Amino acid sequence: MSDPLSLWNKTPTRQAILDFVAAVATPGRPDLIPAAERIATFDNDGTLWCEKPAYIQLFFALRRLKEQAAADPALLEQPGYKAAAEGDLAYFDSLYPGNLTELMRLLFDTHAGMTQAEFEAQALVFLSEAIHPRYGRPFKQLIYQPMIELIRYLEANEFKVFIATAGGMSFVRTVSEEIYGIPREQVIGSNVTYETRMTEAGPVLFRKPGLVDPISDGPGKPVNIELHIGRKPILAGGNADGDIHMLWYSQTSPHRSLQLLLRHDDGEREYAYDAGAEKVQQLATVRNWQVISMQQDFVQVFKFE
Amino acid sequence: MSDPLSLWNKTPTRQAILDFVAAVATPGRPDLIPAAERIATFDNDGTLWCEKPAYIQLFFALRRLKEQAAADPALLEQPGYKAAAEGDLAYFDSLYPGNLTELMRLLFDTHAGMTQAEFEAQALVFLSEAIHPRYGRPFKQLIYQPMIELIRYLEANEFKVFIATAGGMSFVRTVSEEIYGIPREQVIGSNVTYETRMTEAGPVLFRKPGLVDPISDGPGKPVNIELHIGRKPILAGGNADGDIHMLWYSQTSPHRSLQLLLRHDDGEREYAYDAGAEKVQQLATVRNWQVISMQQDFVQVFKFE
Repeated sequence: MSDPLSLWNKTPTRQAILDFVAAVATPGRPDLIPAAERIATFDNDGTLWCEKPAYIQLFFALRRLKEQAAADPALLEQPGYKAAAEGDLAYFDSLYPGNLTELMRLLFDTHAGMTQAEFEAQALVFLSEAIHPRYGRPFKQLIYQPMIELIRYLEANEFKVFIATAGGMSFVRTVSEEIYGIPREQVIGSNVTYETRMTEAGPVLFRKPGLVDPISDGPGKPVNIELHIGRKPILAGGNADGDIHMLWYSQTSPHRSLQLLLRHDDGEREYAYDAGAEKVQQLATVRNWQVISMQQDFVQVFKFE
Repeated sequence: MSDPLSLWNKTPTRQAILDFVAAVATPGRPDLIPAAERIATFDNDGTLWCEKPAYIQLFFALRRLKEQAAADPALLEQPGYKAAAEGDLAYFDSLYPGNLTELMRLLFDTHAGMTQAEFEAQALVFLSEAIHPRYGRPFKQLIYQPMIELIRYLEANEFKVFIATAGGMSFVRTVSEEIYGIPREQVIGSNVTYETRMTEAGPVLFRKPGLVDPISDGPGKPVNIELHIGRKPILAGGNADGDIHMLWYSQTSPHRSLQLLLRHDDGEREYAYDAGAEKVQQLATVRNWQVISMQQDFVQVFKFE
């Protein structure tokens, strides 16, 4: 049998994953878990795809903010539009985590009022064509290959793998099958509300302004997991403080469980930063969550290396 | 090969189902649809289980309203509690559809404030032990066998089948695997919001009062289908006016699609009523939705007959 985790160096991290999967998926083993309960949830930004120098969805919103400000220069009096026009990423960075609501409003309301189909078409074009400033590749290529390999390995062991992103559910769904092999219905995230409008051609879905409470971050992640899955994950993976509740929630499973925390310590191949992950890194030690070191554990980060 | 729809009489209804499934699931046929897009959604009350003499979840809420009124008789001044104490089902009937919000509030707020785990335990006990007033059987046995057979037949043809109930998502999930063979994560419905509270034992989910807008009925069904599935169903089944939007939505699919409308015309084996389904029955003729006659199309209704 070929190596199911060929993109992972032979470290204790890799071994912990192999041991866990063997324990819960091998018939006859004491920790065997029924396949229906083998639920895995992964954060997306910084866990499956790159979140630097800014969230990918922020680049998408910036493009829209700039378009809107070009059409109506009065908007430039608002700080979000001004920062977008000036390419001032630091402004948006400063909103997280203290002013998450404002950040999310900028991210989501920029595309309110259009049909869901229009939104998805725009998102797909953006993800397929807009170019990452450092790597010079379309954003949708900025995905961590060892994590994709891990998803395939879990599926081969009858796990059902969900993405639980703090970002926009619909935004990620436009490419989830293509880039992750994860069906749209297994992508959970933050949301606007939709509205069904009856037309002569039947019901059409429109995007309403305003985010659904709670945002799918921090304490909102278990809420959304309950809404969409209704089971506790036995494996959860994240990289930031916003993943603490999800990781810990999976650890309250009555079954054996595994928590994975990806640490960004590879400034050469990706980015090196602990900002926004200080608390989760402390907790990982206390609660025995498995830390993945990008530098030490990943044979390769991106496909295009 | 054994008959996949053995509980359906050999009528045009059965033939329409067989023809549709063969057309979309047989390789080489012009209407073949990729398996990932073979999404089916079924309403629950009156489509998969019996909704008379009242919604099953209403009986569940009545029990709770009575308990609460016994503990605090002042509550009896409120009409909902009074009707519950007197077993006045007509009061609750009178709320639908004109005062759906009040009905839903009674159904849901009765179980607010407890943990999600407590709620599910209570719902499971109720569905397994409380007895239907006419059939003398636990409520969870009040399921239409030909519809279950249809679900299995669709699954055998690589459909992914979801329940899209106007009732409580969590209420139905407690038994969906046992009685329908449908995993919890494929049950969509109306919802309260949850709240994650951090305890020493980790995050715990509590049920908050108040329903999430929109209720999963009428125009809210496509909204919830988008939220949970993100694809248009190619097959939708319902029985009441609240299913109009879902049925029509599935018909806006770019693929070939089938809409099924179950008509309750069998007072002998079940109930005969068109109230609350007048509009959808008219539309079914106009829009070529396939009407299922319980009397003519079902060999058997319940398992215990």
